[in-house]
Amino acid sequence: MTVQRGRHFLQIPGPTNVPDRILRALSQPTIDHRGPEFARMTREIFEGLQKLIRVSGKVILYPASGTGSWEAALVNTLSPGDRVLMFETGHFAAQWKNVAGKLGLKVDFIPGDWRRGADPAQIEERLAEDRDHSIRAVAVVHNETSTGVVSRIAEIRRAMNRAGHPALLMVDTVSSLGLMDYRQDEWGVDVTVCGSQKGLMLPPGLGINAVSEKALAASQSARLPRAYWDWQAMIAANQTGYFPYTPPTNLLFGLREALQMIQEEGLENIISRHNRFGEATRRAVRAWGLELNCLHPQEYSNAVTAVRVPEGHDADALRKKILEKFNMSLGNGLGKVQGKLFRIGHMGDFNDLMLAGTLSGVEMGLALAGIPFQKGGLQAAVDYLAGNE
Amino acid sequence: MTVQRGRHFLQIPGPTNVPDRILRALSQPTIDHRGPEFARMTREIFEGLQKLIRVSGKVILYPASGTGSWEAALVNTLSPGDRVLMFETGHFAAQWKNVAGKLGLKVDFIPGDWRRGADPAQIEERLAEDRDHSIRAVAVVHNETSTGVVSRIAEIRRAMNRAGHPALLMVDTVSSLGLMDYRQDEWGVDVTVCGSQKGLMLPPGLGINAVSEKALAASQSARLPRAYWDWQAMIAANQTGYFPYTPPTNLLFGLREALQMIQEEGLENIISRHNRFGEATRRAVRAWGLELNCLHPQEYSNAVTAVRVPEGHDADALRKKILEKFNMSLGNGLGKVQGKLFRIGHMGDFNDLMLAGTLSGVEMGLALAGIPFQKGGLQAAVDYLAGNE
Amino acid sequence: MTVQRGRHFLQIPGPTNVPDRILRALSQPTIDHRGPEFARMTREIFEGLQKLIRVSGKVILYPASGTGSWEAALVNTLSPGDRVLMFETGHFAAQWKNVAGKLGLKVDFIPGDWRRGADPAQIEERLAEDRDHSIRAVAVVHNETSTGVVSRIAEIRRAMNRAGHPALLMVDTVSSLGLMDYRQDEWGVDVTVCGSQKGLMLPPGLGINAVSEKALAASQSARLPRAYWDWQAMIAANQTGYFPYTPPTNLLFGLREALQMIQEEGLENIISRHNRFGEATRRAVRAWGLELNCLHPQEYSNAVTAVRVPEGHDADALRKKILEKFNMSLGNGLGKVQGKLFRIGHMGDFNDLMLAGTLSGVEMGLALAGIPFQKGGLQAAVDYLAGNE
Amino acid sequence: MTVQRGRHFLQIPGPTNVPDRILRALSQPTIDHRGPEFARMTREIFEGLQKLIRVSGKVILYPASGTGSWEAALVNTLSPGDRVLMFETGHFAAQWKNVAGKLGLKVDFIPGDWRRGADPAQIEERLAEDRDHSIRAVAVVHNETSTGVVSRIAEIRRAMNRAGHPALLMVDTVSSLGLMDYRQDEWGVDVTVCGSQKGLMLPPGLGINAVSEKALAASQSARLPRAYWDWQAMIAANQTGYFPYTPPTNLLFGLREALQMIQEEGLENIISRHNRFGEATRRAVRAWGLELNCLHPQEYSNAVTAVRVPEGHDADALRKKILEKFNMSLGNGLGKVQGKLFRIGHMGDFNDLMLAGTLSGVEMGLALAGIPFQKGGLQAAVDYLAGNE
Repeated sequence: MTVQRGRHFLQIPGPTNVPDRILRALSQPTIDHRGPEFARMTREIFEGLQKLIRVSGKVILYPASGTGSWEAALVNTLSPGDRVLMFETGHFAAQWKNVAGKLGLKVDFIPGDWRRGADPAQIEERLAEDRDHSIRAVAVVHNETSTGVVSRIAEIRRAMNRAGHPALLMVDTVSSLGLMDYRQDEWGVDVTVCGSQKGLMLPPGLGINAVSEKALAASQSARLPRAYWDWQAMIAANQTGYFPYTPPTNLLFGLREALQMIQEEGLENIISRHNRFGEATRRAVRAWGLELNCLHPQEYSNAVTAVRVPEGHDADALRKKILEKFNMSLGNGLGKVQGKLFRIGHMGDFNDLMLAGTLSGVEMGLALAGIPFQKGGLQAAVDYLAGNE
Repeated sequence: MTVQRGRHFLQIPGPTNVPDRILRALSQPTIDHRGPEFARMTREIFEGLQKLIRVSGKVILYPASGTGSWEAALVNTLSPGDRVLMFETGHFAAQWKNVAGKLGLKVDFIPGDWRRGADPAQIEERLAEDRDHSIRAVAVVHNETSTGVVSRIAEIRRAMNRAGHPALLMVDTVSSLGLMDYRQDEWGVDVTVCGSQKGLMLPPGLGINAVSEKALAASQSARLPRAYWDWQAMIAANQTGYFPYTPPTNLLFGLREALQMIQEEGLENIISRHNRFGEATRRAVRAWGLELNCLHPQEYSNAVTAVRVPEGHDADALRKKILEKFNMSLGNGLGKVQGKLFRIGHMGDFNDLMLAGTLSGVEMGLALAGIPFQKGGLQAAVDYLAGNE
Repeated sequence: MTVQRGRHFLQIPGPTNVPDRILRALSQPTIDHRGPEFARMTREIFEGLQKLIRVSGKVILYPASGTGSWEAALVNTLSPGDRVLMFETGHFAAQWKNVAGKLGLKVDFIPGDWRRGADPAQIEERLAEDRDHSIRAVAVVHNETSTGVVSRIAEIRRAMNRAGHPALLMVDTVSSLGLMDYRQDEWGVDVTVCGSQKGLMLPPGLGINAVSEKALAASQSARLPRAYWDWQAMIAANQTGYFPYTPPTNLLFGLREALQMIQEEGLENIISRHNRFGEATRRAVRAWGLELNCLHPQEYSNAVTAVRVPEGHDADALRKKILEKFNMSLGNGLGKVQGKLFRIGHMGDFNDLMLAGTLSGVEMGLALAGIPFQKGGLQAAVDYLAGNE
Repeated sequence: MTVQRGRHFLQIPGPTNVPDRILRALSQPTIDHRGPEFARMTREIFEGLQKLIRVSGKVILYPASGTGSWEAALVNTLSPGDRVLMFETGHFAAQWKNVAGKLGLKVDFIPGDWRRGADPAQIEERLAEDRDHSIRAVAVVHNETSTGVVSRIAEIRRAMNRAGHPALLMVDTVSSLGLMDYRQDEWGVDVTVCGSQKGLMLPPGLGINAVSEKALAASQSARLPRAYWDWQAMIAANQTGYFPYTPPTNLLFGLREALQMIQEEGLENIISRHNRFGEATRRAVRAWGLELNCLHPQEYSNAVTAVRVPEGHDADALRKKILEKFNMSLGNGLGKVQGKLFRIGHMGDFNDLMLAGTLSGVEMGLALAGIPFQKGGLQAAVDYLAGNE
């Protein structure tokens, strides 16, 4: 096996390049999770998360991946056989649907082509049809990591309001929180679902729920069995700065550091920075003559760009070549788009030169893998970045 | 607040003092969890875990705490309303019982005084009474972290066999695996439940199940709802070295290192080392004239020693004094023994001098906290250690 | 080779147990030593060092060990054939004398028995005899790391003043700075010589000079050849925050952190903490019936205790046994006391329980190595610590 | 101050981007420098260094920067007033000359224009003229870090041989060792001078000499005063695995890891990798229409490229802009080329995508700083890299 030198370019759409500062924070000696120092850290973290999620309600942290947070959102608010309305924006929406099904919920899954966000009009229509309000929740993925498509949450909320429907609104922000504009309270989201490994710049292992008053009320009567995911036990223990079972201490060290870094830079600046990355990347893709997976400009993701390869070519062969020759990992096509697209993650602790390095690797890889394209994507991106400092 | 210098003595019974080597391993840059390097690591880890657990069946890893592993063991094998036989060895047995209850199982909870292990005779009796085999599982905590009492798993297996009962045997080894003798296959355990933060010397955040053929078969017909904890999806994905959802990459870096360290030292040596720690600590406690919580010598834990304080004295005031004056965290009395005992963790990456430091802190703390005791415990421990090199 | 577990007890009298926090600081990515961020760090460090050394003059930092700092002090202030008055307090005084000799200086070396500090009266006498002031410098080791003996610098200064002699006073504070009381300006020291690996809690690799106005003036006419060690070039470059040649960036990261830690705790508290360690250790030694190397109580070192083993016994065999059995390194007898004494370092990022662990290792080692002693040293130390919180 | 995110591009020509793996190695707890584990590490390091330097003679390690290694080479082999022949290849040659002058040596400094390597013909001529062999050493910089020019050492050796001159040959390999072809024994070099912060991928703080038999013999009669730098004391102590004074333990941890990494990749592969970086960078510079500082293709450096900015423009203003906008440090023009050129370091733990990122930063910076250039340099580099996998 050839030895590869230099820093690996981890350009999958998460986990992202964890900054050294957070890696060092993670490597602090584990402390007593029942001691006073821990309680201080817990409080600091919850305050920081509430600010980031723009929520006044409770935030819940699980030793879990984002998948666990999906489950937590459902089991705390719903009862066996409840209907949930979901939208097929891509692989992760489909996975969340599967989770709901396994837990005994009935999912109304609005089909999609994996190239568009959830459609507020369709949601409004479905809810309007549901006269007896048997749909208990609408669950949407904000940024579909598998497709690079953003769903417009505020508009979905307005559509729900227009339908006058009392369903809870649950939003997966796994790859949007800390990267794009997101406002739980203002947008009327009831449960925000998130993980640690994207905008929070941590390794995976932390699941997040943020909960509105309405969702909390729903949890009182929800009858899906739950123990590990139970909000009530969490909230009760968190009051004193502790957890009902052993928390993932070292990830919390990292989370505290991440929240500090986010505050130092400022969320507005973070969002602007990612806007640049998204736009530069899309210009590169267009200059290469390749097709963006996302169809609507107002739904472009600034965290991840999914690029379709021409018919008859294999995106995975391209990714393999790039990994071997250029020490860069790109995201693969998941589920039904396997081999048809690759994904460029451009999120987190990331900057212009890292992006240029990333796009150079794609451009060189396209050449080596024999995929038809026009040169100049890298140059187009760099020109944009230089012209929009 | 007074600044404390020198290394903190983290003598709670887990998380334990994570060795520097593992902290450094944890701080490696996160890699692509769908790339070839990751798959190699996964395989290495599963092989190491099978050796450690002495199991030929599958091992499952969750981004979760040990509490999640309890839940996983139950939801994969049981159906709503199934009966489970459990034994009240202490706080964690009681917690596991609560989890089972919340999930919709019926628990036969054999009461205990928190000073004894699970009684094979009582288990045999209960099973013998269960003519129609409505009890589907016996669930026991191997080393009760809350009480410092070990249950004799091999004897419990023999008791079950004598009763000719087909129930599954589930064992919580959260604070015994990698510290004490444990043999899943040989002892006929069906599900081993574990976490990362004790014998594996990691921070918390990884949950473990190890599964016999019989348990795997049971999972085919078990009807408790499950998604996150589902063994089948895990086993299917693990075949190729991957996971059905994002795994906790950096904890896996640490786990690989921990398994390497365990192999370097040798499990027999690790067990002997802990035997010394247990015996030395008990000699200290006796010399102080204090009472060991564990009543039966054959049930002494070598990973944690729970010490009862005399009536009228508060173990938590003692712990607070020791934390403030000597920069050492001890375990508190949990649940119904709160304030009545404190626990000395002596497990993991630990040695004779760290133990002597620990016991000196207890002896000094006893003096400062005004708890009646006789000097000489530290000396008794040191004499034992020096005499039994 | 047996694998050793738990944290190594590095009880040599330096390098000391580097705290995790500093190890993490050291592992930050190296930065441009000619960039603005570096310049900010440099200034912060010099301010912190001036405060610590209590000096208003310049501080000079070398990529070097303490030995280099000795050389720097000499070559910047003296000319070939100049006389220097030194006192044989132990191995390091003898080594400094050797350096001076190799550089072409003439050393008046007042003999000593390695159990006493430099004698102010003898120094006064020698200087009084030197009517033509051909002695250009008096060079003394503040804390003789090889013997555990402190020289009384303020008294030596007074003796020099009484003799009305203009010689420069140079003091080696390698194992006293940041551990004991030291005041360059107030005590009239002209050159303070130090290193990074004791009170500053860093790995070795940084040499320090702190320079009075008088020493700086002397450097104008000093004719020993010098390039690497040249103060003028250093001071000129340091004005702008930079160095005349590449500085040891990562050690400077650690130094910044160390100075921060020292400020957080407060120098007075640090000194008190070490006083406890010194007294507790001496009580242990006396209770064991062993002999302290240092003869005069007013010259006891609180950073390191040198203990003599009875005639006919080998201190190095004891140290070897302790290393193998208890994973602890003790300091050896250097030069002419090799095998006759061992040294217990109790300095830096150290606390009561670490000291108790250390002393337990010595007590157990004495037993195993067959050195005649009485038990009870550890207990005496612990009783003292508990009684003097 | 604006917060910068993403990894800093440290493209000064050393210290280089220290790989994470080495940063972690550096952060291991300091060990006893007089213990058995240390001695094992020392031996391993010396073996690795001899292989890397391709020398059979002794290697000496100092806690020092490369500047100290220059001094060490001189003071160990020469006597006051000795003549040394040096060649003005750039700033570092001039600095080494200054060191020699300060130490009392007479330097014949062949003038150069900082755009060419040392001229073997001129050296031959000078030596041929020196009939009485009063020139005792020829000292040349292999890779002039300040100018990006390589001197042809093997040809210089042949020139010396042709002149039949017995002078020692000393070579500064600070920025060539571990990056370019270098062979001490085969090329007849007497003293190799090096540091840790370039090809060895470490932070600064370690100075290296490698010594031929002839140089060692010269050290017997050399009369420049020396103590810290004395080879004899080093060699004597190193025999047993130790050092005559405290070595920089944690840098040695890093060095051991670096040597391991170099062996894993293979020196031939490392050299090829840097050839690619050098060629790609030069193609970029030419495509931009800028001027390479190095005039002769056979003297191009593959570790660093110095680029001249057009008359009337300020290279430092460019660097400042690039630092502020793109989080990249480039090397400045040193000494008499200050402001006239900037330097791109492309050495060490570096890969194609990092290079592309680096060159994109230069190209964007040129645009922002208003320096006249043609676009396309980045593209030219990327095309070369893709076409020469």
